[in-house]
This record gives sequence, C-alpha cells and structure tokens, in this order.
Amino acid sequence: MNQLFADIESHSAAYLDRLVQVTAQPSIAAKGLGIAAVADLLTSMLRAIGFQVEQVDTDGSPVILAQMEGAGPQTLLFYNHYDVQPADPLEAWTTPPFEPTIREGKLFARGVADNKGAIIARIGAIESYLRVRGRLPVNLVWVIEGEEEIGSVHLHQFVTGREELLRTPLGCVWEAGGRNALERYEIALGCKGILYLELRTRGAARDLHSALAAVVANPAWRLLWALDSLKGPNGRIRIPGFSDDVRPPTPAQRRALAAMDYPEEQVRALYGIDSFLDGLTGLPLKERLVFGPTCNIDGFHTGYSGPGSKTVLPQEAMAKVDFRLVPDQQPAHVLELLRAHLDREGFSDVEIAWWEGEAPSASDPDHPFVQEAVSVAAQVYGHSPNVVPMSPGSGPTYLLCAQFGVPTVTAGVGYADSRAHAPDENIRLADWSDHMRYIVTLLERFAQP
Amino acid sequence: MNQLFADIESHSAAYLDRLVQVTAQPSIAAKGLGIAAVADLLTSMLRAIGFQVEQVDTDGSPVILAQMEGAGPQTLLFYNHYDVQPADPLEAWTTPPFEPTIREGKLFARGVADNKGAIIARIGAIESYLRVRGRLPVNLVWVIEGEEEIGSVHLHQFVTGREELLRTPLGCVWEAGGRNALERYEIALGCKGILYLELRTRGAARDLHSALAAVVANPAWRLLWALDSLKGPNGRIRIPGFSDDVRPPTPAQRRALAAMDYPEEQVRALYGIDSFLDGLTGLPLKERLVFGPTCNIDGFHTGYSGPGSKTVLPQEAMAKVDFRLVPDQQPAHVLELLRAHLDREGFSDVEIAWWEGEAPSASDPDHPFVQEAVSVAAQVYGHSPNVVPMSPGSGPTYLLCAQFGVPTVTAGVGYADSRAHAPDENIRLADWSDHMRYIVTLLERFAQP
Repeated sequence: MNQLFADIESHSAAYLDRLVQVTAQPSIAAKGLGIAAVADLLTSMLRAIGFQVEQVDTDGSPVILAQMEGAGPQTLLFYNHYDVQPADPLEAWTTPPFEPTIREGKLFARGVADNKGAIIARIGAIESYLRVRGRLPVNLVWVIEGEEEIGSVHLHQFVTGREELLRTPLGCVWEAGGRNALERYEIALGCKGILYLELRTRGAARDLHSALAAVVANPAWRLLWALDSLKGPNGRIRIPGFSDDVRPPTPAQRRALAAMDYPEEQVRALYGIDSFLDGLTGLPLKERLVFGPTCNIDGFHTGYSGPGSKTVLPQEAMAKVDFRLVPDQQPAHVLELLRAHLDREGFSDVEIAWWEGEAPSASDPDHPFVQEAVSVAAQVYGHSPNVVPMSPGSGPTYLLCAQFGVPTVTAGVGYADSRAHAPDENIRLADWSDHMRYIVTLLERFAQP
Repeated sequence: MNQLFADIESHSAAYLDRLVQVTAQPSIAAKGLGIAAVADLLTSMLRAIGFQVEQVDTDGSPVILAQMEGAGPQTLLFYNHYDVQPADPLEAWTTPPFEPTIREGKLFARGVADNKGAIIARIGAIESYLRVRGRLPVNLVWVIEGEEEIGSVHLHQFVTGREELLRTPLGCVWEAGGRNALERYEIALGCKGILYLELRTRGAARDLHSALAAVVANPAWRLLWALDSLKGPNGRIRIPGFSDDVRPPTPAQRRALAAMDYPEEQVRALYGIDSFLDGLTGLPLKERLVFGPTCNIDGFHTGYSGPGSKTVLPQEAMAKVDFRLVPDQQPAHVLELLRAHLDREGFSDVEIAWWEGEAPSASDPDHPFVQEAVSVAAQVYGHSPNVVPMSPGSGPTYLLCAQFGVPTVTAGVGYADSRAHAPDENIRLADWSDHMRYIVTLLERFAQP
C-alpha cells in the first residue's frame, strides 16, 4: 500500500493540474453549456491511462462509458457525472465559478465538489494503481453521465440495451459524499428519488390593474392555494395515497440509522438556522432526513418584483416544486396521484408544464460489498465511517444499479462546507488526496492473494 | 357654447403638441425618474395661460398647486397627477412607451390615459375658455401631484397647513375615467382605499440543496401559508375584524349601483377571461366590483425562475400584497389587524417589510355638485352618464377632499381598452377632445347668468 500512496503523492501536482483544467470549463446541463468540451476532455484523459472509452449518444448529453479489463473475474462499477449546477447568483462568489482558485488548501470552483473532483481523483488513483501494479485486479466499468444535475433525464437511453452489462458488477462506487461536519467519512447507500415539476396557472390575457382583483381571478392565488393543498402548515403532505408505497426501514437500516451521526450543532451553524424543521432533534431528526419524503418549493414567481409598489393583477404564475421520494414510491405514480388530487380539489386549471423523475433506492447495509467499502474506509480514514442508509439527495441509483440488484456506496471528496449547488463551492485538497487513497485501497482488496 | 367648442377645435393641433411633449418625458415616481422635468414643464404651461403656480416641496415629488381667480364667489378644485406607472415589460409595447405614437386615431404612450392626457386637455380647455370668455366664472384651485402611482405617499405633507384652502371648494373634478366598454361616459364618486404591503420570510443563511427540505424550514412555504391564512380558496378574507368597519351602501348608492351598467361581455372579451370571479354576474358582480374589499397578490418571488430544474431550498421569499378598502376601513387599522392575525396564526416570522395606505371615500350620488357634473356629461356626451358610486381603484380622494366634506367626480379621457398600468397604454383623440368640451361646459354652468 505504501507504494501506491507514494505514487499518488509524487504525482499529485500533475493530477491537480487536471482538476484545474476540468473545473475551468463550464458544463452546465441545464443551459446546454460546455457539455461536449468536457466530455471530450475526460474521454482523452481516460484513454490516456488505458481505458476503452465510448461516448454513448442520448437525446441529451453523451454518456461516457469507460471500460478496462482487470485480472480477476469480478467487475466493479464506478458512477460519476461531468455536468454541474448553474453558477448563479454569480455575485455571491468570492472568485468566479469557472476560474478555479486555491485558498487556504481549498480549491474553489463550480462542480469541484459535485463532482469533478471525484472524477479526477479516481483517474489519478487508477493511473497510480496501474503504474505500481501493472494491471487492475478487477474489471472496471465506469459510467460518467452528463445530466445528473437535471435529473439524469436521458440516462435511461443509455441503460436500455445494456442491461446485461449493468447486471454484472458486484457493486458500484457511486459519486458524492466525503466528510461530515464531525470530520467523519460518510458512505451513503443509495438515494432518495425525486419528482420535479413546473406548475403554471393563467388568468387574464394580460396583467391587469389590481383594482380588478375584486372580480377577476388571480392566477397567483390559484397556484398558491393549489400548493397549500399539497402541504399545509403542519408540514404533512396532503396528497391521498402519497405515502402508501413508503416501505418502513428494515432492521438493518434502523440499526444503521441509530449508529449514524448527524452533528446537529455544526449543521445548524453551517446553515445559519436556530433549529431544525418542527424542532426535530436526535433519532427522529435523522429518520426524517434519511427516510422522510419531502415536498419542497424550489421557486415561485408571479407579478411585480421591483422596488416599491406596482398594483398589478398578474396574468400568470409559475412554481417549481420537488418531491423527494423513498422506497418504493415511483415518480410516475406520484405524478398521477398529484394530478388526481389537484383535479379533485378543484385545481384542474393548474397545469403541470413539465416534470422529470427518478426512483429511490437504498442498498442493504449488510450486503458484503457494502461491508467491504465500509471496512476500506475505516482503514484509509482511520475511523469507522458514518453510514447513511439512504442519501437525502437524489441520483439515478435505481435506474443504473438497484433495479439490477447492484448495491451502491458513495465515495466522495466533499466536506460539510463544500457548498454544492451554491456559491463558493469548494473542496479541501487533503480530502481530495484521501479519495485517491480510498480508491486504490478498495481496488487492492480485490487483488488475488 | 359653439364658440368655446370652435376655439378648442381650431387649437387642437397646438394642444396635441403639448400632449406629445409631456408624454415623451418619463415621470416614474416608483423609480424617481424624470419627476422634476415634468413638474417644471407643466408649471410653465400653466403659467403661460395665466395660473399662479407654486411647486410645493414634499419629501417626495413636488406637488403643483395652480390657482386662478374667477368671476364668481365659488371655487372649484381640479385634481390630477403627473407621475406615471413604470413601463415594464418593455418588450410588450408595440412602440416604445416614451415615444408617443399616433395610430388609427389613438395616441400610444405611458401615462397618456393615466393621466397626462387629462391634464393637457384641461389646460387646453381653460386656455380656450379664457380666450373666448376672458375670465373663468369660478375660482379654480388645481392640485397636480407627482406620486399618485406610488400611493400619494407624501401628499399629506401638502395637505397639512392647507386645510382651509381645501375646505373651500364646492366640489372636485378628479382624475380618471372616460368611456366604458359600452362607449358610455362614466363618472366615479370617490375611490376605494388601499393598503399595500411587502411581506418577507427568511430561512437559512443561504440557498441550500433542496434535499435538506426534509429538515430545514422553507421560507417560501412559510410565506405561502401565511398568505393562505389571509384568504382561502373560497375568496373570503380571513383576517378577524377586517370587515367590521365596512359600511353598507346607502339607498342612494344602491340606486346608483343598480342603474350603473357594467358591460360584462365586452369586459370579458377585453380581459380575455371566460367568466368573472366566483361566476359572478349582474348586480352581485357590480356590488363586488364597487363595494367589495379585496386582498390581491401583486407579486410573489422566491427561488429559481430559470429554465429546467434547479433543486434549491430558497433562503428567502417576498410577496407584494394589496388590500382595496371600502368606507370606513382605515389602512393603519387593517395593518394592525393583519399583524395581530399573522402573530396569532403562528406567522410572527413573516415580516412586514414596508407598507403604504390610503383611506376610501365615496361621494353621495345625490349631492348637488355630483348632479351638476352628471347633467353636464349628459349634455356633452349626448347620453346619461354611467355613475359609479365608488371607483374600484384607489386615489387620495379621502385625504384631499372627502375628509373636508368636498365631493369628487372623476372626469377623464380613457376608454375600455386604454390599458392603464399595462403595455400599449393609449387614448383615442376623439375622447381627448370630448374631455376639453366637458370641462368648458362644466365651467360655463357656473357662469353668472
């Protein structure tokens, strides 16, 4: 192992150059910006260290499929994504989002935590492994998609026809994760699902003088009341049938949840909040975070937003809403329930302008591959990792792995203040090096004795 | 009378030049834009025809006070405003809002209907009257303020110390009005009041990943629920005590309401709506329009508004809300009731960031001055005018007139498609000429026989 770690150490400057190069290039799927350039850049980096790489076309961003034969009969799957979140609000960044900058041992750039940092760390780890050992101990299949931040909307096109390939791996090293606010390394076993919607209401043919509110319906009120019908002030989701498919956590998941730490005080300080929702704390807080479905307003826009007063009856209103789903809620089914609920409640005028969804999945904490990943983390990080039975965020774990019976463990370069999806996204370079050490150690576990 | 009308006719090109000149100049109180320039322009136009003019300073726009002595002992008050609404959305204008353009007998410009058109028409009418008769038959006091579109927020500073002057007039020719969708001339007797508020809620110290919605309060939901507590889907305002000060219409007001026409089909076509709020029609529709208080969302903004999906838990939310008030609701009292209601309902976290208000007023339809104005309209327009017992819009009728016992009648240059407060605001030049004829005819009524 010392040899592997030493090789990583001695090449870290070159590996960091790669990271700067990749994070300097925007690749924002939501805006269709820079996707091909980053896909090409990663393809050439992967080929340079010996991967067979194919860019699989979809109706959206291409999916990078990189494969390398190893010594053993076993196959590992890696999953990452090369697209990033939009960078706005730009004015909130200390340095520009696509000018990677190192300050106090941290690299600041959009996408460095989520998750170009992990991609480049893994490339470095594999390069070092190959240099020291000559060959990987397992076959490696690496899927790097380009639409994770917009809900992996075309990844199913990649999956279709590749079911056999995707049934092969014994496990998948997923993206995301890193250290929590207690500096404990964290491994999440799958992801919540998501249903993301845009809702619209329309009123008069144009904005009217607000005096007419006495006799003309206001689409802002209509949309507001429709949203209120989804979730009221007590926080309970009011859509009949919404919770019917929620499967209670297994005993193994409950044990993992109880053992999981959640550093409440640090998290509150980081977010700048006095308390958690509904005053939750302890185990109930963790249970809500990990196993609780949500209904969240991502945006609501209607009418006048400028300074002072403008008396207007807006002609339309728009809201963006996401539901985080837990096993076995399926987004298409929740959408049906939602539409039926709106119609029943008298909100058939509320349009679902578009939607996208991902199914939830949570791997069994007792699965041997999960146990192996946990054990490797303990070895590399020097402490027993914090196992999160399911990530509160979403990703295509079900689509790519869980539906084929393949367990997933996250492995990442982030920390509690990485600010994924927010201004000043950053990673600590020490965490980045740890991720390389984690990957080579995991690979080494599969080497034949 | 023929002489007066002939003089107006023969000078209409010069009068129109004035209107183009004044509407070419923005004077947007909400943005503090162009106020002084338009105040100066009008001051010089008024002085040129013989008014004694004073610009009365306030903490906002100056109030133009123009006075002219006439033959009789009686005094008339005119009220107008020289400020206009903001012009956005600019892209929705056929021609730019501050490039006055004539198409098909209509003049398009921001503020031409509301209400620079009336100011310039009145100046023209008075100029013609003086040229033909040598002297006005009454004393004239003309108040032209520059903050009507932002709620006349400093007009009270003008009123204070001028109570004696404001108690003198036998009646006030107010701004606004014109022809309705049936081409019937309309006279409104006072205005609804208004309470305009900006509400704000705050959550975490910054935008968070929406996965955290499981455990972190969302200020968008908080504001939405607070608004829902003000008015539910049945449209009833839920603030206890809100309706306590609502005075039922008098028999004279009820008679006026019954006689008032409201061309429902044309109005629906103009607004592009299939039906009125709650399916109202006939007398109940008119009663709601004229005597119904409102609670309207003028704007609601939080979170992401761009294309596609961004999974965000917004850090704050903002709404602009207006209440239209009817006699004897007082804005400051409604504000107190609102704050108490929010606190009682658990929304003490909802901030009232700022507010402004105006009290309502409705003149007695049987008042002799009102009867005179109606009779003049019948003479000039050739039909009995449509009397609206109270305008559904707001204005400082209470502050400037009603509190001193002075009745108000609107007189304007608009028509049903004038698009006040909206893109493509316009007047028909024929209506503009009619307003000049109306003003000289009204003045003539007060001439000693």
